[in-house]
Amino acid sequence: MTTTQSTSPVSKTSADPLYALYADWAQIIANTPDLTMRLFRAIFDEWHQPTKEPEDVTYREEVVGGVPGIWTLPVGADTSQVLLYTHGGGFAVGSAASHRKLAGHLAKAIGITAFVLDYRRAPEHPHPAQIEDGVAVFKALVERGIKPADITTIGDSAGGNLAIAIPLALREAGEPLPGRVIAFSPWLDMENKGETLVTNIESDALITVPLLEGMIAGVLGGKTAPNNPLANPLYADFTGFPRLYVNAGGDEALLSDATRVADKARAAGVDVTLNVVEGQQHVFPFSAGRTAEADAEIAAIAAWYRG
Amino acid sequence: MTTTQSTSPVSKTSADPLYALYADWAQIIANTPDLTMRLFRAIFDEWHQPTKEPEDVTYREEVVGGVPGIWTLPVGADTSQVLLYTHGGGFAVGSAASHRKLAGHLAKAIGITAFVLDYRRAPEHPHPAQIEDGVAVFKALVERGIKPADITTIGDSAGGNLAIAIPLALREAGEPLPGRVIAFSPWLDMENKGETLVTNIESDALITVPLLEGMIAGVLGGKTAPNNPLANPLYADFTGFPRLYVNAGGDEALLSDATRVADKARAAGVDVTLNVVEGQQHVFPFSAGRTAEADAEIAAIAAWYRG
Repeated sequence: MTTTQSTSPVSKTSADPLYALYADWAQIIANTPDLTMRLFRAIFDEWHQPTKEPEDVTYREEVVGGVPGIWTLPVGADTSQVLLYTHGGGFAVGSAASHRKLAGHLAKAIGITAFVLDYRRAPEHPHPAQIEDGVAVFKALVERGIKPADITTIGDSAGGNLAIAIPLALREAGEPLPGRVIAFSPWLDMENKGETLVTNIESDALITVPLLEGMIAGVLGGKTAPNNPLANPLYADFTGFPRLYVNAGGDEALLSDATRVADKARAAGVDVTLNVVEGQQHVFPFSAGRTAEADAEIAAIAAWYRG
Repeated sequence: MTTTQSTSPVSKTSADPLYALYADWAQIIANTPDLTMRLFRAIFDEWHQPTKEPEDVTYREEVVGGVPGIWTLPVGADTSQVLLYTHGGGFAVGSAASHRKLAGHLAKAIGITAFVLDYRRAPEHPHPAQIEDGVAVFKALVERGIKPADITTIGDSAGGNLAIAIPLALREAGEPLPGRVIAFSPWLDMENKGETLVTNIESDALITVPLLEGMIAGVLGGKTAPNNPLANPLYADFTGFPRLYVNAGGDEALLSDATRVADKARAAGVDVTLNVVEGQQHVFPFSAGRTAEADAEIAAIAAWYRG
């Protein structure tokens, strides 16, 4: 396992537009006790705001395997390779629209395409609807002639959980696996046992345990156990899992989800790269085009992809 | 003046995603008496949702004349011609992000580029900040070598007001004028005198007089008179005004703003095309890629542009 501990300067002030957005959301959530899921979704669709429009990328909406989504198509990209991108947002909020630009930056840096899924969201659609949608897209891409090894499951936060769980579900079904898996600040622990939920709770601008508890109740729906390996991959068997890239911000409360899954996958013999970037928040690549840390991380992922 | 009264079938049901979004917003506004400007802006940034991603369009953020915005750059477009796009949202909400796709559809249909301004918004920045920003962008484009006649000021709702007011301000300053002006469902009347505010109030899914009153108070800021011709172009002198395209939905409460400005400009000798499309809502081209009426309107504008 490669572990990089960056020593880049701390940028947790308003110089990071992602930090500023999280601080603003946290204030709205704290001051609006009756915030509806509808308004929760409205504010989380602003997640795209810290991300600069990537240049030379076009977009196309399509329904793939029954699942709507947005293709990000960098000009001149290799269309035979696909990032199957599952967005974050506690399985309940966020969308292809909120993650379009982030996926565009990544696809462009690698020189391939991305398909950002609008998977069915909780609580209307609890676990495993999200995984089923990801598996359906994966199979549809393979049916179109994309080689499984040329598909990368990738996602952030709850979508990082899905990026890991989709290959686990494919393996369980005896299907071929993606060639690579990338998880940005994955949220995996449905039991809230991570030590950084305590030690980083002050430095994290967004995450709180009550927020996570609400999202857990929504996705598990009172039916799925919080230690089900497909809902909580910290309980999964990683034998034979694809090459895995995991990152996290050093200031985030979910940091120990990233470190624990990296440890677990490494123990199972998986080729794991973990990158923890000091002073950064949850899913810090959202500041692509605006902060040096986000841009460096995207470049690092592109180099890892080719490596 | 050309006036087209379309007889296309009414589509004011949920088959029109714009109608569905407006109905949803109206319910939120009605049910959330303490809706903050912050949350108002969050929901109005969803305005992009009815619009399908236009294919073969790339984007680039830039600050032009001191004003940030998003270029929409259709592949192969004539970059010597620019739509200077001012978004709607009562001068207070909406953004370049919420209008990126709509501008992209228009620019692509015409085969040119668009720059969608993130002008300073009310109430923090009352009139004439929005016009000043539009004028600054216009002048900066001309300084770059774009011919004034190859610039079109264009916008929807409050942005349609700005698309008309910016040339009026340029004329007042002795500057050259844009070659064309396009106003989608312009909101011009700061006195709420339009007859369709009464006759169409039931068929309009979004607009209410209290909503308009709040926006008027914000943009006029207690300083500008509601009959100031730059704030309310229904009071302007249209002598020498550029070719003007105005549209509106037949079901919208602001329809009489469109018909009155068309009449007034025609009386001043302006080449005016007015298109009122039956059964349609405020800024119905937002459903581009999803409804036949929106797509037909964008095609009609492209034909008018070339004509």
